[in-house]
Amino acid sequence: MGGSAISGDLARDALGDRFSVPLFVSRDYSLPPFADRDFLVLASSYSGNTEETLSAYVDAVERGCMVISLSSGGKLEEFSRTLGIPHLHLPSGMLPRTALPFMLIPILTVLNKLEVIPPVEEDVMHASEVLRDILSRNSVGIPTADNSAKKLAVELVGYAPVVYGWGYLSSAAYRVMTDFQENSKVPAKSALLPEADHNEVLGWQAPKNLTALFAVILLRDRGEPKEMKARIEATRDLILKERAGKILEMSAEGETNLQKSLSTVYKGLITSYYLAIANRVDPWKTGAIDLLKKELEIRLKTRDEISTRVEGLKP
Amino acid sequence: MGGSAISGDLARDALGDRFSVPLFVSRDYSLPPFADRDFLVLASSYSGNTEETLSAYVDAVERGCMVISLSSGGKLEEFSRTLGIPHLHLPSGMLPRTALPFMLIPILTVLNKLEVIPPVEEDVMHASEVLRDILSRNSVGIPTADNSAKKLAVELVGYAPVVYGWGYLSSAAYRVMTDFQENSKVPAKSALLPEADHNEVLGWQAPKNLTALFAVILLRDRGEPKEMKARIEATRDLILKERAGKILEMSAEGETNLQKSLSTVYKGLITSYYLAIANRVDPWKTGAIDLLKKELEIRLKTRDEISTRVEGLKP
Repeated sequence: MGGSAISGDLARDALGDRFSVPLFVSRDYSLPPFADRDFLVLASSYSGNTEETLSAYVDAVERGCMVISLSSGGKLEEFSRTLGIPHLHLPSGMLPRTALPFMLIPILTVLNKLEVIPPVEEDVMHASEVLRDILSRNSVGIPTADNSAKKLAVELVGYAPVVYGWGYLSSAAYRVMTDFQENSKVPAKSALLPEADHNEVLGWQAPKNLTALFAVILLRDRGEPKEMKARIEATRDLILKERAGKILEMSAEGETNLQKSLSTVYKGLITSYYLAIANRVDPWKTGAIDLLKKELEIRLKTRDEISTRVEGLKP
Repeated sequence: MGGSAISGDLARDALGDRFSVPLFVSRDYSLPPFADRDFLVLASSYSGNTEETLSAYVDAVERGCMVISLSSGGKLEEFSRTLGIPHLHLPSGMLPRTALPFMLIPILTVLNKLEVIPPVEEDVMHASEVLRDILSRNSVGIPTADNSAKKLAVELVGYAPVVYGWGYLSSAAYRVMTDFQENSKVPAKSALLPEADHNEVLGWQAPKNLTALFAVILLRDRGEPKEMKARIEATRDLILKERAGKILEMSAEGETNLQKSLSTVYKGLITSYYLAIANRVDPWKTGAIDLLKKELEIRLKTRDEISTRVEGLKP
């Protein structure tokens, strides 16, 4: 779920062109019905206590899937010890959404070791250089005039961001949206091209008092495929220009799809922090998420139920 | 894409618990990289001229996938005749989004004949009774006081709808959103539980001048799993109640997941027509979509390129 599941999406987007087998990202209490002994299940929850992940994890063990788990501790680590399931221990003490690299890189490493994808070390090393460079150009000390993340944040004050992604920037669009929701505490949405050109574009014909509240952020890349470049620009010039409150762009950097995707995610993250500051909200607070987690734990006692299932599976 | 691709999503949602193999819905110019000779590709475009579908279709033929195509004519039918690919001819003259049953039922029938899913005739027959019943209770002649679709449409005037779905009502939520966009010409979004409880809920903490513009529609089902019921109600009572402009509900009907999903889609469709009338817009007009299609055809000449590829594949 949330910050943990997006690592799977980013892995698929970034290395999609090099994947030799299908990868599914599941965000529910159980696995898709066709998952059987031939499937490798990576159960990933940063806290190790996400009830949906724990439930899907036990489901995977019961079905006889090959299972590997990742967490910074919690029940997922405990259950894995009990059941003899390989577990990757992540450094603890972060917010799940800030632990993204610690969940993504192990997933890529495992997939490479299993020969599902080619080696990624070099790609990852260069990605971290790209991200460092982005941070240095957009850090707190750099004034707004020279700081594209601050500039973008200022433009977004008072608007609901709508992030348009496509292809290898699809899950980057989703993640940028959730960072605006979680850090900046603003309503946001994401949509994908070319699909949006077949339905969503008609929604922009509403009266301007509704559409002008949305600031569109188009994800761009100087290497974008010619079909996508034409779509993005036609959608921008023929549809959005007249109706959206604002049209902004955010450009991917780097050479590979992994670098492009992560650079976009990182720019969105930094922008979402500046927008939080501009909105006078605390980017670290997750009150509503915690409130719901506690309430559901009280109402459902899902973790107790899962513990019982784990007991029954003990070797 | 659009009204054609959603049939694949609905098939997966509705029969997910009975699927013996994975089903992917692709909305792009090419297939996922792992699709090979072991894959069956259903190339579905109502018009038969959607450039993304034509491109992915030729991709599938080139890769040696087993291919079946569905359209009401167009290039897809023409290419299939040229290449000796089995083609299902659909009745013509509809808007793609109104042709949904004509695309969904053949997909289910083909999947059943290939023994991927169990027989669905009875399920489909009963679904059509459920839909007829919904129409009779919500038709134009029934006054608003007794007409839940008209009532819902009246509530939605001036708001941007946000449709919350989950599990077997996930693609129903997406389709209800696109029907509001396409028919009612309003900005809309959809989100899924439990995922939304891990990020989106924080976005509702924005100032009320932004959040109060959204009318949330919760998809419900009297048979919803207990975890989902608890989540929907906790999210509604603890998060949305204070912040959303409105909270509305739409209930699935019928016994099976197929019936529940289609009944929700149909209620959304009828509501979107009444909202179009309330908004004084023509639900049938698709100006922006057509404009983009024409512009991209001029800029890219994708269909000419695909024709050349088809020529090269001639047996």
